[in-house]
Amino acid sequence: MAKDLKTTKFVLDESDVPTHWYNLAADLPALPPPPIHPGTGQPVGPDDLAPLFPMELILQEVSRDRWIEIPEPVRDVYRLWRPTPLYRAHRLERVLGTPARIFYKYEGVSPAGSHKPNTAVAQAYYNKQAGVKRLTTETGAGQWGSALAMACAFFELELKVYMVRASYEQKPYRRILMETWGARCVPSPSPDTEAGRRVLAEHPDSPGSLGIAISEAVEDAATREDTKYSLGSVLNHVLLHQTVIGQEAQKQFELAGTYPDVIFGCVGGGSNFAGLAFPFVREKLEGRDIRIVAVEPTACPSLTRGAYTFDFGDTGRMTPLMKMHTLGHTFIPAAIHAGGLRYHGMAPLVSLLYEQGIIEALALPQNAVFEGAVLFARAEGIVPAPESAHAVRAAIDEARRCAETGEEKTILIGLSGHGHFDLGAYEAYLAGRLEDYEHPEEEIRKALAALPQVGT
Amino acid sequence: MAKDLKTTKFVLDESDVPTHWYNLAADLPALPPPPIHPGTGQPVGPDDLAPLFPMELILQEVSRDRWIEIPEPVRDVYRLWRPTPLYRAHRLERVLGTPARIFYKYEGVSPAGSHKPNTAVAQAYYNKQAGVKRLTTETGAGQWGSALAMACAFFELELKVYMVRASYEQKPYRRILMETWGARCVPSPSPDTEAGRRVLAEHPDSPGSLGIAISEAVEDAATREDTKYSLGSVLNHVLLHQTVIGQEAQKQFELAGTYPDVIFGCVGGGSNFAGLAFPFVREKLEGRDIRIVAVEPTACPSLTRGAYTFDFGDTGRMTPLMKMHTLGHTFIPAAIHAGGLRYHGMAPLVSLLYEQGIIEALALPQNAVFEGAVLFARAEGIVPAPESAHAVRAAIDEARRCAETGEEKTILIGLSGHGHFDLGAYEAYLAGRLEDYEHPEEEIRKALAALPQVGT
Repeated sequence: MAKDLKTTKFVLDESDVPTHWYNLAADLPALPPPPIHPGTGQPVGPDDLAPLFPMELILQEVSRDRWIEIPEPVRDVYRLWRPTPLYRAHRLERVLGTPARIFYKYEGVSPAGSHKPNTAVAQAYYNKQAGVKRLTTETGAGQWGSALAMACAFFELELKVYMVRASYEQKPYRRILMETWGARCVPSPSPDTEAGRRVLAEHPDSPGSLGIAISEAVEDAATREDTKYSLGSVLNHVLLHQTVIGQEAQKQFELAGTYPDVIFGCVGGGSNFAGLAFPFVREKLEGRDIRIVAVEPTACPSLTRGAYTFDFGDTGRMTPLMKMHTLGHTFIPAAIHAGGLRYHGMAPLVSLLYEQGIIEALALPQNAVFEGAVLFARAEGIVPAPESAHAVRAAIDEARRCAETGEEKTILIGLSGHGHFDLGAYEAYLAGRLEDYEHPEEEIRKALAALPQVGT
Repeated sequence: MAKDLKTTKFVLDESDVPTHWYNLAADLPALPPPPIHPGTGQPVGPDDLAPLFPMELILQEVSRDRWIEIPEPVRDVYRLWRPTPLYRAHRLERVLGTPARIFYKYEGVSPAGSHKPNTAVAQAYYNKQAGVKRLTTETGAGQWGSALAMACAFFELELKVYMVRASYEQKPYRRILMETWGARCVPSPSPDTEAGRRVLAEHPDSPGSLGIAISEAVEDAATREDTKYSLGSVLNHVLLHQTVIGQEAQKQFELAGTYPDVIFGCVGGGSNFAGLAFPFVREKLEGRDIRIVAVEPTACPSLTRGAYTFDFGDTGRMTPLMKMHTLGHTFIPAAIHAGGLRYHGMAPLVSLLYEQGIIEALALPQNAVFEGAVLFARAEGIVPAPESAHAVRAAIDEARRCAETGEEKTILIGLSGHGHFDLGAYEAYLAGRLEDYEHPEEEIRKALAALPQVGT
């Protein structure tokens, strides 16, 4: 299987599915402070989390072990689509006339179409092991909900998904996908929970929000003995499970005989970015010269315009307070099509890396992002998810700079998923109907002023 | 890269992308009779086809060479997703409790989500080579149109797709996919052609049909110097281009150390089935013991209930007459969700094999098909296209028979695509709203009575 830079896709054998997840916490000189209980102001301990998560995941959340073994039943499922291909974007390079070498690591080959199953499968497995019968979760656009629905089908767990009502009505295909895998999906706010009923009593026509949906899913799990809750991003253990992406990419670059000079990944909660970047961050901490860039939407610029402070993970103020880059839990991002990036905060581990200058960040407006996505689709075939398209556009800009300077940089894109369920967004772009959002300073200042004054 | 039967997916290196297409015509004791010109009653010659197709494709249509070399620029595109994986369906086998070994060859990894790009890319390439600037085609549900749109993006050809109006309105995502790749897509009947205007004058609200759309695309190509026409199934050269599927599968079975006892592929026009089956038909003709089964819908049973005779390829009676299994060009299949299988005829080469008893055929109703598809999705993750699900269901039935008899058969499924754009069909199934169609004898007799009396 001799490879060189002429290769189109660097394909690994399934024996190359990583055996361990990589835990960045083992290699950081300092860790993010622990989450704070909003009532007591004290650090949250394992017992506080036990009603929501099985103990194995709680232990992973605080582990400092560098390598955590992936259970064989999880690897068995990973083999359905992993290792995912690393592509050399020969055709895109030609279109751009760039001397840069562009690579993309493509997670859209999973049956759910994104990186999300990497953690969904692990979480379903540990819950099953712990005797849990049923999971709950929230979902916005539906990428996370559908990944968990698939994982629950594999491990024979019941799943109830609280889906933000606006998305539930706009994106029926994502809902049907969940139902095809056997999950129950209800629009949130729903009459099924106290939290939902409270909202409905006041706003019968509420379009819902991720904040409300989280409250419903958490309440459901906390009030039923057989049920736990599952989250698709932000937390340490979720980021941990995604590190199979970066580990595979490292092996694939060995095959290619090169190494990235710069990596671009999109960031919402941070899990896809972390999954690709953390194994490379480890090498950077050891002295390797590499730029790692998180790309966010101008409509939700938590890294580039947020504060680094303690905040709630949800709008409903039910979660512990985490130290992170945040626009404030009352901030409502503009309605861009990259639904997966519309989160007010950022994973504490990603925030810490940014604060320490180990990673960079930039923000892009959505028309530029879709322009890049269409250019990519016409060159490489794959139609990127609107979220992933942020990384694509940033990489295209870098490659164009290389065309000017003549630099032969090696660029890596984290292509976290396909856009098969997001074509409405492409239609709006092609018809010239997309707006670029940039929240005025005043609005962001106001949201930041509402931040809780805890543990600073 | 040691493999054995425990492997989940048999992945080939891109150096294993076939170098040649396999032409079954070289190995058949007798060929199907040539197509007949409906006006003259004489065999159609290359000159008759020249206004519609470039000469390379016309030559492939009548070639008896066993191997036809795949041009390097076509292989270069194939490498974006080929070789496609062959999966061992371990999880499905466990669910079924069968001693059978179930494999599936998955074409849904192409960016268009099906096997269709295998020929779309080749056709775009040969047209580009011949100096053609623009292609036209028709599409029903949109799988073919989107594959050709992608191929035209790669070779910088203009494309106009006449999409059956009913589908154009019901399946906007498929249309947007074509537009994202740069194609123009109009609902048919359209005011852009004489054929379209004629229908609109009489039926301004016509929902369209594949027959009308073919007439429009052919007229457009025949009346413009810079334009040719492209077809997604039925013809010999289209089937030829699909044989990369079966060749790869043979190599993958060598890795697995086994060989299929029985192959199931769905049939509409016949190209996906032929692509997988023909390389195995060759081995069967050499004496190998293997069953090859074409699976069609009960709503459009051209093999199991049609006549083997000369008929038009389209409802509009514009094409040459081909000897094939047909329900008659006036036959209107019931509105099942497997749109790609709603074709009154069958590829002449596939028809001949069936007539000679080399392949078998069976017909399935759509509720049974979707039941199989959901079972498959919950076991293997992938949500099959409704078309491909016909092969899936037939294989499940075979595996269940093996569970009764204890036979350790090796079963191969042609999984020609995913169902990401067909979730409306899954919703209808899950809600119990799908109907099973079986056309009454009288209706089929009537359609067969309208067959042209030519060249028999």
